[in-house]
Amino acid sequence: MKKIFSLLFLCTFLLGYSQQQNLTVDDAVLGYYKGLYPSSLQNLKWVDNSDLYVFQKENELIFTNAKTNKVIKKITLEELQKSFPTLKRFPRLQKISTTELTFSNKNSIEVFNYITSTNSTTISFDKSAENTEYNSTAKSIAYTLDNNLFIGTTSNPKVTVTAIDDKNIVSGQAIHRSEFGIVKGTFWSPKGNYLAFYQKDESNVTNYPLVDVTTYPATLNNIKYPMAGQGSEKAKIGIYNLKNNETIYLDIDTSDEHYLTNLSWTPNEKYVLVAEINRGQNHVWYNRYSIETGKKINTLFEEKNSKWTEPEFDAVFLPNSTTEFLWFSERDGFMNLYQYTTEGELVKQLTNFKWVVTSILGFDSNEKNVFITGTGADARESHTFKVNLKSGKYTKITKKSASHRTQLSTNGAYIIDTYSSLTIPRNIEIINTKKGNTTSIYTAKNPLKDYKLGTTELVTLKGIDGTDLYAKITKPANFDASKKYPVLVYVYGGPHVQLVKNSWLGGSSLWMPAFASAENYIVFTLDNRGSANRGFAFESVIHRNLGNAEIEDQLTGIDYLKTLDFIDSSRIAVNGWSYGGFMTTSLMLRNPGVFTTAVAGGPVTDWKYYEVMYGERYMDTPQENPEGYKKAKVHNYIKNLDGKLLIIHGSVDPTVVPQHSMTLLQEAVKQKVQIDFFTYPMHPHNVRGVDRVHLVKKMLDYVVKNNK
Amino acid sequence: MKKIFSLLFLCTFLLGYSQQQNLTVDDAVLGYYKGLYPSSLQNLKWVDNSDLYVFQKENELIFTNAKTNKVIKKITLEELQKSFPTLKRFPRLQKISTTELTFSNKNSIEVFNYITSTNSTTISFDKSAENTEYNSTAKSIAYTLDNNLFIGTTSNPKVTVTAIDDKNIVSGQAIHRSEFGIVKGTFWSPKGNYLAFYQKDESNVTNYPLVDVTTYPATLNNIKYPMAGQGSEKAKIGIYNLKNNETIYLDIDTSDEHYLTNLSWTPNEKYVLVAEINRGQNHVWYNRYSIETGKKINTLFEEKNSKWTEPEFDAVFLPNSTTEFLWFSERDGFMNLYQYTTEGELVKQLTNFKWVVTSILGFDSNEKNVFITGTGADARESHTFKVNLKSGKYTKITKKSASHRTQLSTNGAYIIDTYSSLTIPRNIEIINTKKGNTTSIYTAKNPLKDYKLGTTELVTLKGIDGTDLYAKITKPANFDASKKYPVLVYVYGGPHVQLVKNSWLGGSSLWMPAFASAENYIVFTLDNRGSANRGFAFESVIHRNLGNAEIEDQLTGIDYLKTLDFIDSSRIAVNGWSYGGFMTTSLMLRNPGVFTTAVAGGPVTDWKYYEVMYGERYMDTPQENPEGYKKAKVHNYIKNLDGKLLIIHGSVDPTVVPQHSMTLLQEAVKQKVQIDFFTYPMHPHNVRGVDRVHLVKKMLDYVVKNNK
Repeated sequence: MKKIFSLLFLCTFLLGYSQQQNLTVDDAVLGYYKGLYPSSLQNLKWVDNSDLYVFQKENELIFTNAKTNKVIKKITLEELQKSFPTLKRFPRLQKISTTELTFSNKNSIEVFNYITSTNSTTISFDKSAENTEYNSTAKSIAYTLDNNLFIGTTSNPKVTVTAIDDKNIVSGQAIHRSEFGIVKGTFWSPKGNYLAFYQKDESNVTNYPLVDVTTYPATLNNIKYPMAGQGSEKAKIGIYNLKNNETIYLDIDTSDEHYLTNLSWTPNEKYVLVAEINRGQNHVWYNRYSIETGKKINTLFEEKNSKWTEPEFDAVFLPNSTTEFLWFSERDGFMNLYQYTTEGELVKQLTNFKWVVTSILGFDSNEKNVFITGTGADARESHTFKVNLKSGKYTKITKKSASHRTQLSTNGAYIIDTYSSLTIPRNIEIINTKKGNTTSIYTAKNPLKDYKLGTTELVTLKGIDGTDLYAKITKPANFDASKKYPVLVYVYGGPHVQLVKNSWLGGSSLWMPAFASAENYIVFTLDNRGSANRGFAFESVIHRNLGNAEIEDQLTGIDYLKTLDFIDSSRIAVNGWSYGGFMTTSLMLRNPGVFTTAVAGGPVTDWKYYEVMYGERYMDTPQENPEGYKKAKVHNYIKNLDGKLLIIHGSVDPTVVPQHSMTLLQEAVKQKVQIDFFTYPMHPHNVRGVDRVHLVKKMLDYVVKNNK
Repeated sequence: MKKIFSLLFLCTFLLGYSQQQNLTVDDAVLGYYKGLYPSSLQNLKWVDNSDLYVFQKENELIFTNAKTNKVIKKITLEELQKSFPTLKRFPRLQKISTTELTFSNKNSIEVFNYITSTNSTTISFDKSAENTEYNSTAKSIAYTLDNNLFIGTTSNPKVTVTAIDDKNIVSGQAIHRSEFGIVKGTFWSPKGNYLAFYQKDESNVTNYPLVDVTTYPATLNNIKYPMAGQGSEKAKIGIYNLKNNETIYLDIDTSDEHYLTNLSWTPNEKYVLVAEINRGQNHVWYNRYSIETGKKINTLFEEKNSKWTEPEFDAVFLPNSTTEFLWFSERDGFMNLYQYTTEGELVKQLTNFKWVVTSILGFDSNEKNVFITGTGADARESHTFKVNLKSGKYTKITKKSASHRTQLSTNGAYIIDTYSSLTIPRNIEIINTKKGNTTSIYTAKNPLKDYKLGTTELVTLKGIDGTDLYAKITKPANFDASKKYPVLVYVYGGPHVQLVKNSWLGGSSLWMPAFASAENYIVFTLDNRGSANRGFAFESVIHRNLGNAEIEDQLTGIDYLKTLDFIDSSRIAVNGWSYGGFMTTSLMLRNPGVFTTAVAGGPVTDWKYYEVMYGERYMDTPQENPEGYKKAKVHNYIKNLDGKLLIIHGSVDPTVVPQHSMTLLQEAVKQKVQIDFFTYPMHPHNVRGVDRVHLVKKMLDYVVKNNK
């Protein structure tokens, strides 16, 4: 196996030794609270339909004209407090127009006219409200209470949309466990006359019992958890008419437990478009429904794939058209854009990139171009492009090698570009989308300049099938290539995640470089096949066989490490969470002798205990793919343990339920294998907040103690 | 503080080095299965109303006349198999008369006439039956199915006694969580005409949620668990009349959740005697009820105590009397016997021992003497005594310094005496109770003679209040007093348990001497105040203040160890389970610097999470004794941790529920204290069976690794 080592980026934090101090892992974990991550501008936003942008400086909102770079106005907290005396700090803006600020204040949505200094609209809602979505056209907020959906208006804070006693039926919330790009359950129509919403019936979904130990005595907290191969939820789409307060449900039979996703309104409010996916997830029908009758009008197109189909984006209609829209599809192997009509006519494939489009930002005012984001040629970066709607020709707007996050002004004339790279903590610029000229408006200082830290470097390896694999290597301060260092491999390895990026710290959490320097370690991470932003072939090779290609690639990383003179090959540890916990346990147990130590958090240990939506996409059902499930089942390898293994699980993990770890422990006991375990009581899938310090300390103490 | 060291017993296993091998801790844990505990005689029993005793030798039952020491008969398995062809081995006998063997065979009770070689009675019952109790006079078996009580007779295998749908109401099972000496829920009347039974209503008892991870997905297993200070069970006593199949319930109002215990029939079957204890457990009423009317006839006597009252023994009627009985009471500070009439007249205090009577074996045929067991003057032993019913004069029948377990022949002429001591693995003798002469019938070989093990020695220390405290010290093989040894303190420390005994291995589990020799350790155990068999003052000093006197005494033990030149005082670890887990965590956290390492299994960490019956006896309710609960709460000391602490808990522990450990972990995380944890999935309060090897290995590995 040939390996290529290319040192692409080198980020030296070591600017001068004289006054540098050590960074503790504890401080690193709490880095955000301790100012150790690059600072930014708060409330940075375009003012609708203008060339103005705003950001907050202390308790003042500053308006700047992008054309002239002149500050033209300021609004102070004191001004706001005259109308909202309970405000303690400048609120986070939901929206800003040339006359109004919209923000939420406790249990209300406030619209403040900053020209007249008057509060133009207040909509109060129940303090227990969740899943709030305000619509400025309708001047209404959708929200859920328990399993039902409500709307708050200026005249009535609680208009009932659904009133269903059966707790198995949940309205107005994200369905399908937020897979298929679903992030919410309410969809305001373009003119604010309707509210479309998802509804799920979980009657067929089993309960998983979690235990709350904070009550006296402990109490049961059942959650609905559809396990692979078992009964799943049945989805519906309701359309609530704000004029007559009536709801109709689209006429869709989901008794086969198929999925409804990517709900989009046509601009004329007559139809909604819905991507329907069979439970087997290898066939999509993109359907148009009449909201008047609820009946299906037509199937615009179908997509099939022998592995899986995973539409994740709503239709984006072309400006001033109610029939033509752009659609994201991976059908050619990369996420590209296709122009369709609502009659189902494929007008054209708009983009033909061999890289991944990740979003549509909007259009310019003469409607000639669409602005999109995507990786560009280097999958470790993210960039913004302008694509001509007629020709498909494109221009890269963000020039610097970096990871760019951008906001387009409503008129398409400017973008706010916030970016970082291995060498840039955070820069913010205004880019003129026509001329390309840029104006810097913010440069974050290196928050780590006073700390003794080593470098993080990106490397590219060749996988066993010839694929480029991206990895990063973090060295300790005072790195000495003549010495031998132990290694901590940090792994995730599952779909939809990418850990190796040309962004600040290479995308790592701060504890990684802090740990490297504190303990004289090398920290190494590789994005194996299956991970995000590399196209369908790269991602889908894992189908029905999770843990196979991923391990091969991680071992390519290990083989690479072993070629490095400064690596102590006998002291390699591995650590990961969730899918990374699956990878950690699998790497440790299926490759005895490679790692001395493994620390797996919230690990999937048997895919049959994981959920229907995600699990069956990658593994099919346990009934359909018994061999795949068997091969991936960590329990089957526990007997091989050669070294030390610590399993950690949140006691009320609703994502990777505790059964994964508990059954693995049970098997270890049965097989007379000594492993270690810790549980974080009352923590869900991730240990967040201040307790995270305890977690990271536990993991790293274990690594340092045992990786010998 | 003055200490007395007295070497009482010395047991040397080291008989010769030449062929001795090491005993692994694994083998020691499985010692019973590996023949490493002293062997015994199976089915050793008196034949009713005779001088004959039987025992089993391989598959043969041998009858011996105690008077002549002659074998007079044998019954072979083959003989039995003619009537019971499915029998694989000689059955465990429930009862043997001069004509019949009674034994259970799968789902039936069999009575076999071994004179005529015919099966005289078969009573079949449901294969799910639990809590079976056969009565040979009634020729019937009581049993429970789920929450109801049934009787099986020769003609009807399933006579319904209760048929209550409400699962909160449980009949025929032990109530009050088997406190107050309760071991069962059915009580056949002396002539077999009635069946008295306990019934409990658990409607007011909260559920504790346990989780079964062996199902797909995991499922809830709620258990009823009355936590201290919360709603408790309400008890009833039913009397089922076998003649008319009717049940009456005694007219007792238990809406105050008071306790019913020590149920006894009068020999004439007209009354039952019941000890009733208030929920506060400081007042007993001993009441007599008519089984005809269910009404109370009289209160025989009351007992009060400022600490607690804990009657644990049923009335034992004098032979041929239906009105006079013996009653156990600690009212004078030690468990002694009192003679009462059913009218409540105290005839006399029969015994005046300054030590503890533990049971009544029976009477002799001329009804002059009662045979009892008790510790005798040395509380670390157990002996059998003959007490003259008139004069109260007593004779010690078991002579040897040892722990004797005895069976009295029906006529009182002989006892079978099975005993062991530090130097005697197991001897079995027949003792003539009149003449005192003994005949040895079995001498077990030392099962450890081929292993390299050290000694176990008993020592007596003076506690800070002058009380004698008994302890034991186990040394490794090849002990060298000029060396320094690390120590493992094994502790229990709670009521009703005594760990230091003059019995084989000093009462220790075999892993203790095995560990001592394998790792060159000293294992030390001390029975502190609060532990069993030392009388009420010694036991009850812990009242409302658990963890105080017990710790004082354990520290007396540590101080003693520190006076020994061969002890490395800087390397002391502590380990215990259940109450011993409470002690282990309390010792570690409340005395930082004393122990380097602690391993606590199934620990009580906060008495408010423990049960009503046991918990409130010692601590009153959390509402009544907030200071005591606070002082004993382990969480309050977690911040003091100086060293390593491993907590272990069975994941479905129904006795000390997992909430104890989970909340302690939560507090440790909150206080930023690193502790270790392991859970044994699907194990209850104790890890038994082959998995116990894994547990002991985990505990001892942790001790060896960290006690440095």
